[in-house]
Amino acid sequence: MSNPTVRNPKGTRDFYPQQMAVRQHLDDAWRSASISHGFEEIEGPNFEHLDLYVLKSGEGIVSELFSFRRQGGDDDYALRPEFTPTLARMVAAKGSSLPRPVKWFAIPSHFRAERPQRGRLREFRQWNVDMLGLDDPSADAEVVSTAVVALEKLGLGPDDFVVRLSHRDAVAAALVALGGAEESIKSAFQMLDRRDKMSPEDFSRKAGELGMDEQALAGFDQLARCVHPLSTPLADIARSAGLDPSVLEPMEAYRAAMDAAGLAPFCTWDLGIVRGLDYYTGGVFEIHDRAGRERAIAGGGRYDGLVELLGGPPTSAVGFGMGDVVLGLVLEERGLLEKVAPPAPEVFVLCAGDAELEPAVAAMLAELRRAGLHTRRSYRSTKNVGKLLGEAAKSGARSAVIIGREFEAGEVTIKDLESGEQQTVPRSEVLNHLAGVGGQGG
Amino acid sequence: MSNPTVRNPKGTRDFYPQQMAVRQHLDDAWRSASISHGFEEIEGPNFEHLDLYVLKSGEGIVSELFSFRRQGGDDDYALRPEFTPTLARMVAAKGSSLPRPVKWFAIPSHFRAERPQRGRLREFRQWNVDMLGLDDPSADAEVVSTAVVALEKLGLGPDDFVVRLSHRDAVAAALVALGGAEESIKSAFQMLDRRDKMSPEDFSRKAGELGMDEQALAGFDQLARCVHPLSTPLADIARSAGLDPSVLEPMEAYRAAMDAAGLAPFCTWDLGIVRGLDYYTGGVFEIHDRAGRERAIAGGGRYDGLVELLGGPPTSAVGFGMGDVVLGLVLEERGLLEKVAPPAPEVFVLCAGDAELEPAVAAMLAELRRAGLHTRRSYRSTKNVGKLLGEAAKSGARSAVIIGREFEAGEVTIKDLESGEQQTVPRSEVLNHLAGVGGQGG
Repeated sequence: MSNPTVRNPKGTRDFYPQQMAVRQHLDDAWRSASISHGFEEIEGPNFEHLDLYVLKSGEGIVSELFSFRRQGGDDDYALRPEFTPTLARMVAAKGSSLPRPVKWFAIPSHFRAERPQRGRLREFRQWNVDMLGLDDPSADAEVVSTAVVALEKLGLGPDDFVVRLSHRDAVAAALVALGGAEESIKSAFQMLDRRDKMSPEDFSRKAGELGMDEQALAGFDQLARCVHPLSTPLADIARSAGLDPSVLEPMEAYRAAMDAAGLAPFCTWDLGIVRGLDYYTGGVFEIHDRAGRERAIAGGGRYDGLVELLGGPPTSAVGFGMGDVVLGLVLEERGLLEKVAPPAPEVFVLCAGDAELEPAVAAMLAELRRAGLHTRRSYRSTKNVGKLLGEAAKSGARSAVIIGREFEAGEVTIKDLESGEQQTVPRSEVLNHLAGVGGQGG
Repeated sequence: MSNPTVRNPKGTRDFYPQQMAVRQHLDDAWRSASISHGFEEIEGPNFEHLDLYVLKSGEGIVSELFSFRRQGGDDDYALRPEFTPTLARMVAAKGSSLPRPVKWFAIPSHFRAERPQRGRLREFRQWNVDMLGLDDPSADAEVVSTAVVALEKLGLGPDDFVVRLSHRDAVAAALVALGGAEESIKSAFQMLDRRDKMSPEDFSRKAGELGMDEQALAGFDQLARCVHPLSTPLADIARSAGLDPSVLEPMEAYRAAMDAAGLAPFCTWDLGIVRGLDYYTGGVFEIHDRAGRERAIAGGGRYDGLVELLGGPPTSAVGFGMGDVVLGLVLEERGLLEKVAPPAPEVFVLCAGDAELEPAVAAMLAELRRAGLHTRRSYRSTKNVGKLLGEAAKSGARSAVIIGREFEAGEVTIKDLESGEQQTVPRSEVLNHLAGVGGQGG
């Protein structure tokens, strides 16, 4: 295997059947939670005009993307690093002709030209759920509920994960109340977003640069580490950071909506969460493994300005993304993927006679498969029925159809691989027999 | 919409919910036919090392690809234009540790940097079905059967499409028998592959360059336009092109395998088909719309040398690709996509009271959705129950849950939107009531 061309590119994955079964398992949970919540599936291209990302995130994004041109072409393209710009573009393209609210989900692939590490790859898949055109916290609660129900379907409960809620309007008001200048709020958000990667000294120094005195800094620091159950009175939270309770008022309706949707057991406040990306505008959230070993399982929030930025009408919007890499690690650590496997066959056809029976085997396979039964066969040349039945049982099939000596008389043997019972039936009755509920053991 | 950045790139598609429903409809048929035939799903990265494609197809391929490097990196990558190299690479990487035969399918996206036109886009999806490690025509028949069953699931029958079979070994032997030089067979294959785009004069001139005299040329021309039912004796086909019957002998086992799998009604011989790509080695086929308006629906065949070329053990292989673009056009022309739509809800919840009932609506939605019911709600502020029921009926929901005045007494109204019957039930009984089979009209 010395030839480097036969390897997959660094940071990408080959999905063999077992890995693909896990991928489908995630897709199934994501898709069914989305559909039960009334979201409709969409997709876009795997690459977009590079400008779409520059327009949204600035020139700084370019080095994080895989970008390219067609030979002889002059359009710059980039593999999509996230789905929100595509979604906003698709909404913008329809203008106001789409019935509101728009409720869409997608399960696209994404690409980032960064160093691969645990939980981060160069190509990954991300479930995106978005609700546009309803400027009400109940929309935020609908998208959070969709995420929570998907995680429950995958076997995770409130002891396994936590939805950390915050609200950028409240945090911004708190920063101003603490003495931060209006124009430095963006920088303060970036500090909050990276607080786990900064030393306390760096944090203090940067906070000073934002115009905060020692007391304000203490409040800011308190705010950044402010984690409370959802039921905590907002006045208590405000007091703990030396703030007037009115400052946190935007959080009230957000809390009430989460509560009404039955989400309180999954949620905590964590005002240190602001979601660094500039386009978030209101409530924001991240979902984390309670064990705390991995990166965020999901992140999202309100981004009311983005559709307009991309040429559409002003449109309120809320959504999240949940990647497959971190989620896969979290599920694996808990042993929740151990039973996930590719689908097992329903019927296994085997030939206990000479090669001249081969056309009969082919015809039997064709008939059962055309009828929709998941049918496999043995490709071994042995006539040892015991060995062949062993192969059939190992495949997980419920029934075996044995084509052997009886075929001359127009009959085959059907064996129920669970009960071990078997009987000989006319060739023409096989399909009826297999399709009959509970008929196999007959 | 003057800003070009808000458009999707040329030759790519946005899948809004309706287009996505069509895409899922194709996926479902492809996936279920694959699984019933015992194939397991796999996937690979959306981009590969550029060298993988150069190794397989030569430097000429580069201008047809979207290729790129990471900023600061020195590896050349390309968006995958087809799946076979990825598949062969994945088989090669496992060496001989995979149980044979390997039966895999995939539904990947592909990318080609060519001029978009009817039936051809820059990004498209292609179902790939491959069987490796079984050097027997029954493997060819299994993959053809898989394609046929998928098309049948989509509503197409033997009057709609035809599987055109050929065999490169037989065609090569015929070319030699007609006076073509062994070393010019590749060129002759390329001629056959492009015969529909060449004038008869060009065809004659090029055939002359391959060393054929007038009589051989007539035979070659005959061969290139040689279309016969599968049941035609091979001796008759040989005679019609002035050949000794032994020349077409490789076609016999191929025909017998297709016949045994019940595929004869779908197949014809078309010896003009050789599949231009150099790596095909034996039986080859294309599936065409009988109306003949579109490009091939699918194409494939044997490629016994490819896994070894990519560093694996010698491995026989047969497979095909079926793209979504031409197939979509064929289905659309026949009106077979008219009833395809995103999933309709099972339940529609509506609020016939004041805003103070909003938490009750949210709780109801959460309960039904968590139970897995596809549940939607009205987002309109009207209290007009008639209008709200109209919206519920339009959504396609089977049942409406009306939260109104009775809620104070702990009750809600459930209406069967098909029968029109309705009844008031305790709030706590709603889920049982909706989940009960046939209980809605009760």
